[in-house]
Order: sequence, then structure tokens, then C-alpha cells
Amino acid sequence: MTRERLAEMVQRGLVTPTGLISHGRGEAFDYLMGERSTDAALQAEKAAAAYLLSADNPVICVNGNAAALDPEGIIALASKIPARIEVNLFHRTPERMEGLISYLESKGAEEVLGRDPDRRIQGLEHDRALCTDEGIYSSDVILVPIEDGDRAEALVSMGKKVISVDLNPLSRTSVAATVPICDEMSRAIENISRFVDELRGHPETIIKTLDGFSNSENRRLTVECICESLRKGLDGGDD
Amino acid sequence: MTRERLAEMVQRGLVTPTGLISHGRGEAFDYLMGERSTDAALQAEKAAAAYLLSADNPVICVNGNAAALDPEGIIALASKIPARIEVNLFHRTPERMEGLISYLESKGAEEVLGRDPDRRIQGLEHDRALCTDEGIYSSDVILVPIEDGDRAEALVSMGKKVISVDLNPLSRTSVAATVPICDEMSRAIENISRFVDELRGHPETIIKTLDGFSNSENRRLTVECICESLRKGLDGGDD
Repeated sequence: MTRERLAEMVQRGLVTPTGLISHGRGEAFDYLMGERSTDAALQAEKAAAAYLLSADNPVICVNGNAAALDPEGIIALASKIPARIEVNLFHRTPERMEGLISYLESKGAEEVLGRDPDRRIQGLEHDRALCTDEGIYSSDVILVPIEDGDRAEALVSMGKKVISVDLNPLSRTSVAATVPICDEMSRAIENISRFVDELRGHPETIIKTLDGFSNSENRRLTVECICESLRKGLDGGDD
Repeated sequence: MTRERLAEMVQRGLVTPTGLISHGRGEAFDYLMGERSTDAALQAEKAAAAYLLSADNPVICVNGNAAALDPEGIIALASKIPARIEVNLFHRTPERMEGLISYLESKGAEEVLGRDPDRRIQGLEHDRALCTDEGIYSSDVILVPIEDGDRAEALVSMGKKVISVDLNPLSRTSVAATVPICDEMSRAIENISRFVDELRGHPETIIKTLDGFSNSENRRLTVECICESLRKGLDGGDD
């Protein structure tokens, strides 16, 4: 189902062929983690919820793959926090920007930023640096599902708390992020949303969650989980 | 470069969007193995050469992704063994069949089977079962780069020695194959070709190589290599 939706989005020009390859890479890691949210992922998703609830200007950054995978989940999470949504593309063309923003609006998003960029992400070249002042540029906490390493690092360098959703625990994005969530995007969004409900109104638990989270420990736990899953898989075998 | 070539092949209708996702899955495993041929892969590639040299009717089976990744390498290996080439597609249409066969011919292949199938692979439904009598059907050793699990299992059930190239050591294809090569396809083809030169004319070494190879031991070694590479990667981080 997901593959068919992605293939359809490629035909509409909203997802790039490179985006399909990138999705396949994610699928492999998801498979290695048993296609479920690991303990490490749940910890990161709880920390993500704590950061989003503590933010002054939380933003959810959306690209073609993210919009294709779970537009409804992203919109519901943005409305619950509440956070702004901004479309930001690696392969940016006016047509793809308009296409994706319209697509999100057709799925019920009330305001999607990105049409009229008036700022640049520092340290990035070309059009992928373009962003809006009220959205990405002035955000303090930013959720970037499926990000490229350069941009994740640039956002961290600007002093932002970056929550990434990237299934590869060794990617530059996961290494750079404040909170690297290694989980399939739809599950990540759903889990963050549940933790937002759980943490809201409990400031002490929020602070404890933030203090207790470590990027490197979390990624180490993810790697251990992958190795355990691989060894178990040797006795069975599927796909 | 590979990604651009694949994207171009999608536009020409020779590779499917699903093929791009599948390539991405392979990329992730290749990344986990350090983007090099592991010791396990080299052992399997040597065993593959031994099987191909011992065969009465060796066949190299080619699909869209394989043709896109390294047509020259496949054609050179087929001519060196010598082995027949047969195109066999999961998503089979007359246009894709003709397109891929013509593509291989344009790259120098002298005879490519698959245009006029007169047999079926037993135990498979739909058009992906179609094959030729002189090629896949009567082959005793068959090299299947990038195969689906069903077909690999069906070929093994027909009594054939199946050499797979599939980067996932836990896939049904790798589990079913006589020789599961977990390596990037171009490197696998190049290494098999080198081992063909090395083993030809040394029947005793060929027999020793065949006797010493174990599917399950080889896949276990691949998994250990992936885990080692992941743990090392925790200290660095790239991509």
C-alpha cells in the first residue's frame, strides 16, 4: 500500500525517484528493527513530545516523502501541539512546492508555510536553504521527518533543538539531531502524539524526560536492537 | 551516478518505481556492510564461480534492476563462462521485455532469451512464471541477481542450483539459494568473473570449493559483519 502511494506521488511529481530509493533504505532498517517501535524509539518519541511541549515556536518540517507517508498524522500532530507546518524541499521547484502545499491543504491543513520564503537556513547553499521567518527560521524546536544530513546539521548550528525521524541510527542526521528517532515515520508521529497527551500539564515529568535523554545512548540502544533482530532472523528468514 | 541511471531507466519504463524502492533497501544493507565485499561475500562469489564452471547449462537471469546496474558486467561474465542470458520480469509486459532485451543487445549481448517463452517455472502463478525451454527451464545452475523470494524458492524446488545476489542475508531468496551472495551486484559480478579465471582448469579446487560452502554459515558470517560495522559506525557516523 505504502509503495503504491509513493509510486503514485512520483507520477504526480510530488515525490522524486531519489525519494523512492531513500524510502527503500528506510524500509531495510525498519525490517532490521522488526517493523515495530523499539524501546529506543519510544524513549526518543517521549523526549520529542517533551521538547515540542516546551517550545515557544515549534515547527514541523515536511518534504515529499513525509507528505506521502502520513499527511493526516502530521496535520493532526501539528494541530494538537500546536505547531506550524512548513514545506521544505531538497529538490525545490515552484511546482513541487505548490503541489505539496496544496496536497497538505487538501488533507485538512489550515496553514502551510513555505510558499513565500523570506529567509535562508545559514550554512546551506542553493534553494534548499530557503525558508520562512515565522516558521523554520525563528523556530526553537523543529521536527524534521526524513531529513538530509546537511540540513539537520545546519539547523543544529543555528541553535535549534532538532528532532529527526530517520531509521538509520548512524546517519549524519541521527548523529547531529538533539533527539534522533529511529522509527518508521507514521509510527513515530503516532507515538509522539500519544506522549504529547501523556505529558501535557506535567511540567516536572517533561523536565525529567528532557534531562534523561542522551543522543548517543539512544543510538547505541537502537544498534543493539538491530543486531539482536538480525541474529534472531538467522533462524527464520522472511521477505 | 547509479541513482541517476536508475531514475532514467524508470523514465524509459525499464525499471519500475517498486524497483527503485528495492534498490534503496539494497543500498541500506550495502551501507551496513561498509560498501565493500565482505569475507562472506568473497567466499560465496568463489563458490558461485565453481558452480558456474561445473554446470551443463548455466543461465544468468536478468531483470530491470540488474540490467540497469551493470549490463556490461553481466554480458562479459556470460560470455566468459559461457552462460546464456534470459530476461525474466516480476512485472512482465511485452513492452518491458522487448525494451530490456533490446537494451542488453545494444550493450553488446549476442543472444538474449525471453522473447518467446514456451515453458513455465513450476509453482509460480501469473506471467512471472514464463520462461524458455533452452534457458531457465533446462538450466542446472542459475545466477539470479536481485530475485524475489517466491521465484528463488520455485527454482530450487525444480532441482536447480541457485546463486542469488541479494544484499539481505535474511531474505527468503538468501535463505533458499544454494549460494546466497550478499554483495552489491556490480562488485559480485566482477568478483565471480575473477574467480572464474582463477578456478578454470583446476577441477580439484572447484570440487573443494563446492564441498566447503555452507549457506547458513555464510549468512551467519554476513550478519556478524553487519553488526561489527554498525558498532564501529556508532563512533563515527556518515551519510
